Amino acid sequence: MKRYKAYCFDLDGTVYRGDEPILEAVEFVNKLTRSGINPFFVTNNASKTPAQLLAKLTSYGIKTSESQIMTSAIAASLFIKEQHPDARVYMIGEAGLHDALVSQELNLVEKDADVFVMGIDRDITYEKLARACVEVRNGAKFIATNSDKVFPTERGLIPGNGSFVALIEAATDVKALYIGKPQPHLLEAIMVKHGFTKEEMVMIGDNYTTDILAGINFGIDTVHVNTGVTSAEQVKQESAGPTYYLEDLSQWKI
Amino acid sequence: MKRYKAYCFDLDGTVYRGDEPILEAVEFVNKLTRSGINPFFVTNNASKTPAQLLAKLTSYGIKTSESQIMTSAIAASLFIKEQHPDARVYMIGEAGLHDALVSQELNLVEKDADVFVMGIDRDITYEKLARACVEVRNGAKFIATNSDKVFPTERGLIPGNGSFVALIEAATDVKALYIGKPQPHLLEAIMVKHGFTKEEMVMIGDNYTTDILAGINFGIDTVHVNTGVTSAEQVKQESAGPTYYLEDLSQWKI
Repeated sequence: MKRYKAYCFDLDGTVYRGDEPILEAVEFVNKLTRSGINPFFVTNNASKTPAQLLAKLTSYGIKTSESQIMTSAIAASLFIKEQHPDARVYMIGEAGLHDALVSQELNLVEKDADVFVMGIDRDITYEKLARACVEVRNGAKFIATNSDKVFPTERGLIPGNGSFVALIEAATDVKALYIGKPQPHLLEAIMVKHGFTKEEMVMIGDNYTTDILAGINFGIDTVHVNTGVTSAEQVKQESAGPTYYLEDLSQWKI
Repeated sequence: MKRYKAYCFDLDGTVYRGDEPILEAVEFVNKLTRSGINPFFVTNNASKTPAQLLAKLTSYGIKTSESQIMTSAIAASLFIKEQHPDARVYMIGEAGLHDALVSQELNLVEKDADVFVMGIDRDITYEKLARACVEVRNGAKFIATNSDKVFPTERGLIPGNGSFVALIEAATDVKALYIGKPQPHLLEAIMVKHGFTKEEMVMIGDNYTTDILAGINFGIDTVHVNTGVTSAEQVKQESAGPTYYLEDLSQWKI
């Protein structure tokens, strides 16, 4: 397998599963670090801050830093900053999205917004949704961090950001612009910030419709690991496949 | 125009507009009452109890009683009682729906439900939605009181029950069974309870896609009044039109 400069790892299903580390992945990441390569972590999770995600990685023995972690909240904030630098921004979301918007010094408002950005918010209220509906109907651009309709918990699948986006889309007849994987914004943000070429980058993940398609859409090599959502068997039925298939990351010799 | 035994009036847009009575309608309703006919009121509003709606009608000078008021919450409760009399029922909704379910002596539960029934709830929480998602994914029948995606307020259109139903549909891949107009359940409940024939009934309303279609779907005469959501001009472009068109109810001589 080729050697890369920028190894971009998905998190859930690739580096850990819920609260359990995937040991082969942790070992591979640490091998990269020891050989002088600083890997990147690329997640659609917009509710957590890089500091929160870093704490989790650190607890598994991974040595990295906040600057190596790219969330869909950060990518959304960078996108808004670039496309609408002076925008009045109304948000629904948790700490991850709030802090990302603040770190881009965007102007957060409660009404008369130019942009509405939506991430999962487990403190959602009718008032927040009503406000979003009014703002989008009044012309605010509708951006969403990720499209997962559900996510798994111990008691079963429960609503993800994609389902709340469906609510606002139903109430406004406006379709959201998604920034998370499989859109290429997260990978592009890493490339631009660090000056990589596409040939130097690889996206590693378990989920075909987010991770592998993000890599393909962006035009970089991809590695599917058989440790999460999409089985290798399922991926092999897709017309556009990843560059490499691995059972787990212990198979990757560098 | 023909004389009927059961005059079924929509409320918002037909008898009042928001908090303002439509005087021609109030006068017509009172004329019916004085002539010994007790009109019915048929509304998709599932959040209010008949007592709350009665108080509003009384404040406009209309003399009627709770038993003349048929809401989509009552129709949904009657439907569940008939189809699933011993069901464990999980609900999201306000007082109108809660009281209707209780009045049918249905078994309200917080988990392991056989039926999930959804009406607008302006105290919605993530936990309520997560529970609904789990219950429907575990096989609970999904019933909804009305399909309005938005409703009008002073600050603009804000999310109605139909938008929250879209959220649960997105999160479960299960389509809701709607009970409100244009479904015929409300009119059928009046017919069954009072022993009318369809020839004796008429549905009067402003909204083509709810009121007029409910009458057409049920197979009774319909009267469109040009005092609310759908203009007579718009209705005339539909292939199936109402039996009669009136500008307002002062034109109806009985």
